[in-house]
Amino acid sequence: MLERDQPLAIYMEGNAIGFPAKMGHGVIRYSPNPIACVIDSTRAGQEMRTLASLPRAVPIVSSVGEARALGAEVLVLGTAPGGGLVPPEWYPAIDEAVAVGMSVLNGLHDRLAPRYPNLAPGQWIWDVRVEPPGLQPAEGRARFLTNRRLLMIGTDMAVGKMTSGLEIHRVARQRGIKAEFVATGQIGITVTGRGIPLDAIRLDFAGGAVEAEVLRYADAELVVIEGQGSLIHPASSANLPLLRGAFPTHLVLCHRAGQKSLRRSEELIIPPLREVIQLYELVGEACGVFPRPKTVAVALNTFETTATEADEACRAIEGELGIPCVDPVRHGADRLVDAVMA
Amino acid sequence: MLERDQPLAIYMEGNAIGFPAKMGHGVIRYSPNPIACVIDSTRAGQEMRTLASLPRAVPIVSSVGEARALGAEVLVLGTAPGGGLVPPEWYPAIDEAVAVGMSVLNGLHDRLAPRYPNLAPGQWIWDVRVEPPGLQPAEGRARFLTNRRLLMIGTDMAVGKMTSGLEIHRVARQRGIKAEFVATGQIGITVTGRGIPLDAIRLDFAGGAVEAEVLRYADAELVVIEGQGSLIHPASSANLPLLRGAFPTHLVLCHRAGQKSLRRSEELIIPPLREVIQLYELVGEACGVFPRPKTVAVALNTFETTATEADEACRAIEGELGIPCVDPVRHGADRLVDAVMA
Repeated sequence: MLERDQPLAIYMEGNAIGFPAKMGHGVIRYSPNPIACVIDSTRAGQEMRTLASLPRAVPIVSSVGEARALGAEVLVLGTAPGGGLVPPEWYPAIDEAVAVGMSVLNGLHDRLAPRYPNLAPGQWIWDVRVEPPGLQPAEGRARFLTNRRLLMIGTDMAVGKMTSGLEIHRVARQRGIKAEFVATGQIGITVTGRGIPLDAIRLDFAGGAVEAEVLRYADAELVVIEGQGSLIHPASSANLPLLRGAFPTHLVLCHRAGQKSLRRSEELIIPPLREVIQLYELVGEACGVFPRPKTVAVALNTFETTATEADEACRAIEGELGIPCVDPVRHGADRLVDAVMA
Repeated sequence: MLERDQPLAIYMEGNAIGFPAKMGHGVIRYSPNPIACVIDSTRAGQEMRTLASLPRAVPIVSSVGEARALGAEVLVLGTAPGGGLVPPEWYPAIDEAVAVGMSVLNGLHDRLAPRYPNLAPGQWIWDVRVEPPGLQPAEGRARFLTNRRLLMIGTDMAVGKMTSGLEIHRVARQRGIKAEFVATGQIGITVTGRGIPLDAIRLDFAGGAVEAEVLRYADAELVVIEGQGSLIHPASSANLPLLRGAFPTHLVLCHRAGQKSLRRSEELIIPPLREVIQLYELVGEACGVFPRPKTVAVALNTFETTATEADEACRAIEGELGIPCVDPVRHGADRLVDAVMA
């Protein structure tokens, strides 16, 4: 499947920036692969580092043909359309990519593989968001592990749970800590090369899928589990299988600086962070049936603020909660790792 | 598909009684269909009413041939093997049933339909536990409804959530209340003829599946939602999509009289009922983001106790919690309906 030296072209037609671009930006930020280009004909000639404040310079081109000419071997579908299915207007580009010999990485709910039964040797279609075979219901076995298991939790969707988790994992490794990362979404799977597409797994097996990944890393000192959604979000059901599958010992709360309500609806006001933390911990311990996970830090997404505002926001939260608060992208994840390993 | 006058044969080989028999017993207790027989060669010649204290007299036979001779038109797979898949040793009986023209109702996770592509007119294979097409993620729309929505919650799996919910639904209807029942498991779907196999639905769509069923009954005065699993059970992830999909206004806690720990593991002690109730309500309201559901009664499963013990157990819980507690099978569901409609 995906090899680490294969250059990627990220298909983001019409959406190189903005909310649906999360997948593409995550891949640019974290994939170890070379990235040949982004495809977005509405922004051809521009460049992603300046356009979206990303850490890599990636040119934007207008077509699959240009991407291929730049050496791209894999087409990554890099935006999330409403409904989570491949829009019909994408198919000409995908068809063209397959026709010229490119592989395709698809993180949407559709299965593209059946559409392309005749592939060249080495060419593949990876439908990341399909339930893997052989899953079992959870059995609660992760609670008997003796290592540290950190679940990234959030006040909303798309507040930085994957990013913060990857930064913690990276810094922990740099320090020589035996740390592993359990990806639970299509972006995390794409950039780490393995994991479970939690939202595409049948409910009966969702906790068991998390449990199997966590047990796989029983020897690690620290297992960082990518969080999904939020306990206070009406569309999100992921935190129960995450809490019961992983039985985290530690939690880090992810939040966007200054965000007052859920992105979904202004009427859904985000409660005080202390209450959100308490809710996660109460669900985790389930009236004392299980050990209570401990929230040890806040990872604050300050992307939309100035450096001064970011520092002030972190200090305010530290004063409110009495635990460290940093933006791991802006400030580094050292204090988060300190808090988890303390 | 299943019509209400089709006689059923319930396949329970080796398990006409005992824990795996839940599906078969539920169908015998609640299906409006005639039931020709149970198939269990280890108990052939016995009879289910006396054997399992069920409300209907159902003979036990040893083979599909005998079932067919008794007029059975549909083979219902009536036990739940470990792992939830059809054991290989069942296939000869299923093959025989299909060969003699019977339809098959399968509530296990496998799909049997592809195995039997050539069916006679009117013959069908209904794989109940397969995600229905066209689902969407939840949008939190049920919270805007103005009717009563009752979610059955529990201290464990298999403590009587479906049974109690069906009894409440039946009594409410008898009183002329416009009540609907949302089945969320294979037994409920089998006996009501529709519903959603929640545990077979992808996580991203689980809440949305509940929401769609609840919105479908927006005109009902009372919607009873069949609960699944338990918030305090390590293998259960169902209560988050149930709470977020249905946004219940009312809860009824189901519990088995005298049960001290989860059936799964003696080490998992069931907390005081007051704490379990509080946990469900806290998750439901999510720090005040959503309206708090109110637990108005306890449905106590007293199947394993004497009448005197049952009455004492109910009185003890009423004294402890200050809300009505009855066994709806033993005492009737009137006081539960009173509590929900108050």
